[in-house]
Amino acid sequence: MSTPRATKITPLSGFPEYLPEQRVVEQHFLDVIRSTFELHGFPSIETRSVEPVERLVGKGGDADKEIYGIHRLADAEGGSAGGGRESELGLHFDLTVPFARYVVENAGRLTFPFRRHQIQKVWRGERPQEGRYREFTQCDIDVVDTGELAPHFEAEMPLVMAEIFAKLPIPPMVIQVNNRMIPEGFYRGLGIEDVAGTLRIVDKLDKIGPDKVAALLVEAGRTAEQAQACLDLAAIRTPDTSFVERVRALGVEHPVLDEGLAALSAVIETGAAAAPGAMVADLKIARGLDYYTGTVYETQLIGYESWGSFCSGGRYDELASDGKNTYPGVGISIGLSRLLGLLLGKGLVGASRKSPSAVLVAVTDEGSRPASVAVATSLRARGIPCEVAPAAAKFGKQIRFAERRGIPYVWFPGASDDGGDQVKDIRSGDQVDAEAASWECPVEDLRPQVIALGE
Amino acid sequence: MSTPRATKITPLSGFPEYLPEQRVVEQHFLDVIRSTFELHGFPSIETRSVEPVERLVGKGGDADKEIYGIHRLADAEGGSAGGGRESELGLHFDLTVPFARYVVENAGRLTFPFRRHQIQKVWRGERPQEGRYREFTQCDIDVVDTGELAPHFEAEMPLVMAEIFAKLPIPPMVIQVNNRMIPEGFYRGLGIEDVAGTLRIVDKLDKIGPDKVAALLVEAGRTAEQAQACLDLAAIRTPDTSFVERVRALGVEHPVLDEGLAALSAVIETGAAAAPGAMVADLKIARGLDYYTGTVYETQLIGYESWGSFCSGGRYDELASDGKNTYPGVGISIGLSRLLGLLLGKGLVGASRKSPSAVLVAVTDEGSRPASVAVATSLRARGIPCEVAPAAAKFGKQIRFAERRGIPYVWFPGASDDGGDQVKDIRSGDQVDAEAASWECPVEDLRPQVIALGE
Repeated sequence: MSTPRATKITPLSGFPEYLPEQRVVEQHFLDVIRSTFELHGFPSIETRSVEPVERLVGKGGDADKEIYGIHRLADAEGGSAGGGRESELGLHFDLTVPFARYVVENAGRLTFPFRRHQIQKVWRGERPQEGRYREFTQCDIDVVDTGELAPHFEAEMPLVMAEIFAKLPIPPMVIQVNNRMIPEGFYRGLGIEDVAGTLRIVDKLDKIGPDKVAALLVEAGRTAEQAQACLDLAAIRTPDTSFVERVRALGVEHPVLDEGLAALSAVIETGAAAAPGAMVADLKIARGLDYYTGTVYETQLIGYESWGSFCSGGRYDELASDGKNTYPGVGISIGLSRLLGLLLGKGLVGASRKSPSAVLVAVTDEGSRPASVAVATSLRARGIPCEVAPAAAKFGKQIRFAERRGIPYVWFPGASDDGGDQVKDIRSGDQVDAEAASWECPVEDLRPQVIALGE
Repeated sequence: MSTPRATKITPLSGFPEYLPEQRVVEQHFLDVIRSTFELHGFPSIETRSVEPVERLVGKGGDADKEIYGIHRLADAEGGSAGGGRESELGLHFDLTVPFARYVVENAGRLTFPFRRHQIQKVWRGERPQEGRYREFTQCDIDVVDTGELAPHFEAEMPLVMAEIFAKLPIPPMVIQVNNRMIPEGFYRGLGIEDVAGTLRIVDKLDKIGPDKVAALLVEAGRTAEQAQACLDLAAIRTPDTSFVERVRALGVEHPVLDEGLAALSAVIETGAAAAPGAMVADLKIARGLDYYTGTVYETQLIGYESWGSFCSGGRYDELASDGKNTYPGVGISIGLSRLLGLLLGKGLVGASRKSPSAVLVAVTDEGSRPASVAVATSLRARGIPCEVAPAAAKFGKQIRFAERRGIPYVWFPGASDDGGDQVKDIRSGDQVDAEAASWECPVEDLRPQVIALGE
């Protein structure tokens, strides 16, 4: 083998890695997310990490400028590394585009309406910055149907997410909902023809503020009155359906606007009934990606609005098509890496220990290691995670081994006066007689606990 | 957005994807693997998917010829796509090399001996064939220490895997164990100097048979007698420590051979006591990767030996080093994708249903959808996975919706004579009165079951 290099190893910017105690937090989040998705009847699928580049390009708005292609090093040695070979492959930059491909590819073997969840890593070659990574984990749910998709699914998606947020040890989340038909109809009612261009400028509101948006709109050919009306619409945000009156008060009329207002009202009404406070109608939400056609979602962590959205999605009517059938869908996605980047970075959440072991079985001397292994086997048979001490060191050293890993109990085979075993809670120092076949581990000590911490 | 293409979508060779019912099987396997790793006190880590190419090259034997490099498409447009930019990155081809890097990078923040499990995808650009993929999932455990690693860990690793195999619905597995010091000492005792070259030829035994191996050995400069002795050693396979006598009977002596025989005896003795039948000493096992230095493991599924090893690993003393310290380790890895490729491909395992939902809540008419949603919310609050029917179709159609997904129960709000609810087991047709707040779902119906099927 090649000799190990002694060069200093440094992290790769944009490719975060966690220590074991941080990974405990991530796994807790993943477990809550998956189990809630399953409670709501979303089966899991995974798609391969790569797609032909031509399927990725043009689907992701800004994201497709940042696709990573892959190439076999063995090929690169022989000549051109970039293109020219069979079908060039790229790492997926989200889970929606591969899901749309999967649906079309497997349409004959799926049952519609088809719901699924998908939790995977995605890659984007953008400049790393706070909350933005080059490799990160997304947690998606989507429902697609053939031909038509019932509108009640648009209310269901954010409610699943609201249930997840309520179960996680995080500050409150608010899901902002809009319907693209509202700005579209409103702009048309104002006489604006370049709807997409106008939307793109208004979408910068949170980043650059209303004055600059107004200036950009005028620069792009809107009148000052049109620009002001666009800003007035974008300023509307209500926890209930009163947004309808406020839009009406702006005096703009268009059938597409009516349709959008009715659709958003239905979503907000269902949301307010099922999870009061979890959702608001927010008419400035547009979503950068081009494929959304109706309802759109973004989510803010209250107190951390500047971090942007942690959970986004929307309805798309034309993403998946095989030429004969189209598969309209609606989906929403948690940006788990971004959320954990904030929570772990600011110390807002932590784990009670970094080892899954609830018990360290001490070893009196190497000759009696099999007796310690037998204790561990007996505890595991009853679902108690444990490990055997690595060396028959002094008991004080074995206890420190447990302490450093946060393992709450140390088991001493044969430590009792009658030759039986004892177990010590190393937090309290209490040591009591115990049998491996019957000792009950307190349920709160069985697994690491993940808890909210003050900032 | 760009118009969806109507081109036919075909699978990418070497990048397998599962249907939801197959993914249920995969998730069951992943859950058993993870929970057993945790029962044995292995915390989880994940490493980023990429490493600098220079860290990958030279570490993986054959594998490093098949590394996938990644490149930003945005860069490719500007010129050279292959090399020349900062540090070129490649997708990892196993989890051991990135783990070794992680240990060195984080040594100051880890506690030694450090144990971890790691379940992730890896990539190799090799020619796809039966049981070989370009993207696949590995499930690893390793223990590393600073300076010295206690030998008892070499017995612990395969026992964790044996426990997993015993819990999975698969044919019996046998873990074959060897110690590289045995062939090394034996070859030296025979007067052979090129140990690595000899080992590489003997490693082809299963593929090309003893006659061709003997011919290759002679071609490489061994005498006919040396070649025969190498084959005699490789033919020894015993379920207990009787391999020692059989090696001794070959009459070769060397201190490294003695050391290897003692080390392997300790592993096999511990194994035979803890999990009779799970392990055999098999002196032909060598493992292709160059970094192993002591104990090595391979695993065969009985009846499917030609598929090769589903679970492999070994001890490595020099993989991780920061120049000052070395971190010897031992690890073992399940090739989950290869195992599932066989089991799913041959129909040896299956799931009882493809939906996580245990209950479909029927919808009488769209106006009463909120009542059906309330039933679902109540069931979920008690941990019963369920979904609400997508449309207020005729009940027969709603029942068929459940049937096609394998959902065992359909709930009918208000179906009872007294206006209460009823639930139907659609397998038996039994329909009984039930309340969402108290109905007990039989525990075997709560989640999809994964079971062995006859071939």
